[in-house]
Amino acid sequence: MKKTLGQLADELGAKLIGDNSAVVDGCASLDKARSNELSFVYQSKFLSDLKKTKAGVVILKEEFHIHCPVNALVVKDPYLSYACAASLLTFDEYEGDFIHQSAVISDPELVSKNCRISANVYLGKGVILGEGCFIGAGCVVEDNSVIGAGVRLKPNVTVYANSQIGNNVILHAGCVIGSDGFGYAPTKNKTWTKIPQIGRVVIDDDVEVGANSTIDCGALGDTYIQKGVKLDNLVHIAHNVSIGEHTAIAACTGIAGSTVIGKHCTIAGAVGIIGHLNITDDVHITARTLVTRSISESGAYSSGTPMQKNKDWLKNTARFKQLDKITKTIIALRKAGRD
Amino acid sequence: MKKTLGQLADELGAKLIGDNSAVVDGCASLDKARSNELSFVYQSKFLSDLKKTKAGVVILKEEFHIHCPVNALVVKDPYLSYACAASLLTFDEYEGDFIHQSAVISDPELVSKNCRISANVYLGKGVILGEGCFIGAGCVVEDNSVIGAGVRLKPNVTVYANSQIGNNVILHAGCVIGSDGFGYAPTKNKTWTKIPQIGRVVIDDDVEVGANSTIDCGALGDTYIQKGVKLDNLVHIAHNVSIGEHTAIAACTGIAGSTVIGKHCTIAGAVGIIGHLNITDDVHITARTLVTRSISESGAYSSGTPMQKNKDWLKNTARFKQLDKITKTIIALRKAGRD
Amino acid sequence: MKKTLGQLADELGAKLIGDNSAVVDGCASLDKARSNELSFVYQSKFLSDLKKTKAGVVILKEEFHIHCPVNALVVKDPYLSYACAASLLTFDEYEGDFIHQSAVISDPELVSKNCRISANVYLGKGVILGEGCFIGAGCVVEDNSVIGAGVRLKPNVTVYANSQIGNNVILHAGCVIGSDGFGYAPTKNKTWTKIPQIGRVVIDDDVEVGANSTIDCGALGDTYIQKGVKLDNLVHIAHNVSIGEHTAIAACTGIAGSTVIGKHCTIAGAVGIIGHLNITDDVHITARTLVTRSISESGAYSSGTPMQKNKDWLKNTARFKQLDKITKTIIALRKAGRD
Repeated sequence: MKKTLGQLADELGAKLIGDNSAVVDGCASLDKARSNELSFVYQSKFLSDLKKTKAGVVILKEEFHIHCPVNALVVKDPYLSYACAASLLTFDEYEGDFIHQSAVISDPELVSKNCRISANVYLGKGVILGEGCFIGAGCVVEDNSVIGAGVRLKPNVTVYANSQIGNNVILHAGCVIGSDGFGYAPTKNKTWTKIPQIGRVVIDDDVEVGANSTIDCGALGDTYIQKGVKLDNLVHIAHNVSIGEHTAIAACTGIAGSTVIGKHCTIAGAVGIIGHLNITDDVHITARTLVTRSISESGAYSSGTPMQKNKDWLKNTARFKQLDKITKTIIALRKAGRD
Repeated sequence: MKKTLGQLADELGAKLIGDNSAVVDGCASLDKARSNELSFVYQSKFLSDLKKTKAGVVILKEEFHIHCPVNALVVKDPYLSYACAASLLTFDEYEGDFIHQSAVISDPELVSKNCRISANVYLGKGVILGEGCFIGAGCVVEDNSVIGAGVRLKPNVTVYANSQIGNNVILHAGCVIGSDGFGYAPTKNKTWTKIPQIGRVVIDDDVEVGANSTIDCGALGDTYIQKGVKLDNLVHIAHNVSIGEHTAIAACTGIAGSTVIGKHCTIAGAVGIIGHLNITDDVHITARTLVTRSISESGAYSSGTPMQKNKDWLKNTARFKQLDKITKTIIALRKAGRD
Repeated sequence: MKKTLGQLADELGAKLIGDNSAVVDGCASLDKARSNELSFVYQSKFLSDLKKTKAGVVILKEEFHIHCPVNALVVKDPYLSYACAASLLTFDEYEGDFIHQSAVISDPELVSKNCRISANVYLGKGVILGEGCFIGAGCVVEDNSVIGAGVRLKPNVTVYANSQIGNNVILHAGCVIGSDGFGYAPTKNKTWTKIPQIGRVVIDDDVEVGANSTIDCGALGDTYIQKGVKLDNLVHIAHNVSIGEHTAIAACTGIAGSTVIGKHCTIAGAVGIIGHLNITDDVHITARTLVTRSISESGAYSSGTPMQKNKDWLKNTARFKQLDKITKTIIALRKAGRD
């Protein structure tokens, strides 16, 4: 998508220093950008790249402009403005009314206008698609699921029956929405009786779910992913979890059943959160933390131990097994010292 | 599926207190259930919900009946009885002889009666389907795999060639059965030579595998998932692992090659078990534990450290690096005290 | 694939002790192999199996030959030679020029000769396939991706647009190549603005990617998986990561954005590596380690604490929260002792 720098300045609310009529049609890093590409800088460590850049225009803060050899778009938050500019320049190839002949659509009259449905898609009975959706090749949406407007399903996504998906949601390839929760009742013979999982997944507007992530349906009632939540790849959300607005969860994290997470939380990669907890708003959890109790106070939380050379670690980890004993020795020593 | 309370009492072996001819056709939680829905209570914390419920009938223990304003089904184990009742009431939409015209079935004569095969399915040569299977849209079963009766493959499942799947198995969307194990021989040049993975996956009856979980085939010989095993989402089972009957494994857990796990184990989420271990029967492993040695005694096992506020944790985790040194200091102090 | 022992000896550079003209056509373990099957032994713990084997031929070291009751192929590295022999004997069923009629191929003229394309595949516009590829059922390759010669895509793989995949790459079922990186700019209102992910994934020759693993495209620039890298199942590689030649990464490991990993590293299962780090060559990281800083020295690294019985662990893990305080007490005690 081509834009003049004048257009970009208007759309970003930026101050243009340079050629109003110059045109860019893509983005690249400072060191690789050519004269038809936009770049950006937001950290001083990239100033040496800025000085040598051949980009058509650079988004930057006022204070960095002195180092910029090319056109500049001066803004307060270059990182955010770059995100907006890149969206304006990146052509969305998915637009347009098109249904591939190999797609199997049980109820075509429930597909709104301007949808693009790729090869080998299956939409079950009663599936409603809002306007302007893209459904990638190989996606399966089971019966009676409702999908909002402007939704993008990348290839090979599965949406189980009765799921509710809001507007402008993005589901990346291979993710699974609405799979059965892990619910069984133990029997006297130490076997498991399956508890039918008859709730739904409800996903609000502007959610993004990463590749091969899985969100289970509720056992009874719903699993609820609220507005603007962002989930990375290979994330597991169990039945009846609720995730508050604009919370972001990085890859390989798993959240067990019925846990409620507040809004504006940032949960790093490979975190585990056990079931039936309450995590308040504005909590940050660092990578690989295991959360075993509710968190009622905003702030940062962690668990784990630091990486070391294996030979040092072997000694320390062996001592961990004695930590209670060690502590009791110290208490005894201190007591002895006082006597 | 409609049932009278009289029918349900018979089928569950429950004592009905109330209207024999009243009908229910679904399930809901105590606070949401309407007069045509069944609910249940098994913990005293839900007694206030019980007192206000508008459910058609509630499954409960004798002692809770005094608080129940509606029809009651009195049983010994309400959680288990609810699981059974919900199964009776939940209509299985997958029944019936049906093969979608877009399904590609290499050997249709090997598909038993009463199977339902959805759109864009591919069944390779020699694939045998038992009676009453459901194969979801987009599933792929490669050559010579054998699938028992009453099996449910949710959409986009992949079963590699030569897999053996028992009766009444459920494979959730996106899971992969029979992928190559991670086996390579190192060369002199520090590259890897692939070891062909020519064993199988064998899955016995009544197993359930969660969404996007992966079970590798054996290198030689089989990977073996025994009767009644339940695997949650995003679980990884490596080559030549054996999992004993009725063991349950929660999400995000990985089990490395050739490890043998006993029966009736419960393995929580995000556990890691390294290769070539033996875990005996009736072992419980808590969330996020790393199992690095065999377990010959039943019981509960754990590893890891507790979550704390990040600023407290930073201090403690730094000390962990000195744990061996700290311990030696204590030993010296104690020795000095004795002298 | 049938081979005489004479042929095998030639192709492996092995010394045959036995019948030159005997034929084998498969592989099995020492205890199960029949007279038409090849087996191998490389550890003395299998000597008792060797003494009883009924294999057609056994690959072994010189020193073990005395215990071998059948034909033997004597080599220096039996494990590596077995890998080669098994490859020679395992018939690759995927050979041959074949495009299933249900496959949707946007630009058939870009498919090289001798490719096998299965049912319900979708290849987008501009997709180039090299010679002798196998594309499994249900695979989706989006527009303008380039795939080298001899590549195997197992079923239900997704390759996003503009990906570059080298020769002889194997992508296992359900893996996703080129999904969007997890990149958002925070706004003043504590919401997230998506940063378009416009880089690529570049995969060099001889790479293997496990089932349901995910490799994100670069934000700008590329995510780069170099020659001979092996990734196990359910591995997550974030945007702009680079992995050096012949590095192997076991299952359930996640690597965060922009981290650069050297060559010949071995990274065990369930490891987490945070973003923007540099890991040098020849590093070994043990299972479940969290890597939070760059590693400039080759060697083995670890983190975590050992598994214990739950009741012992509960005491020790509680003490971990006091570790800083405990250490200060010791320092004070030692100081007091000196005074």
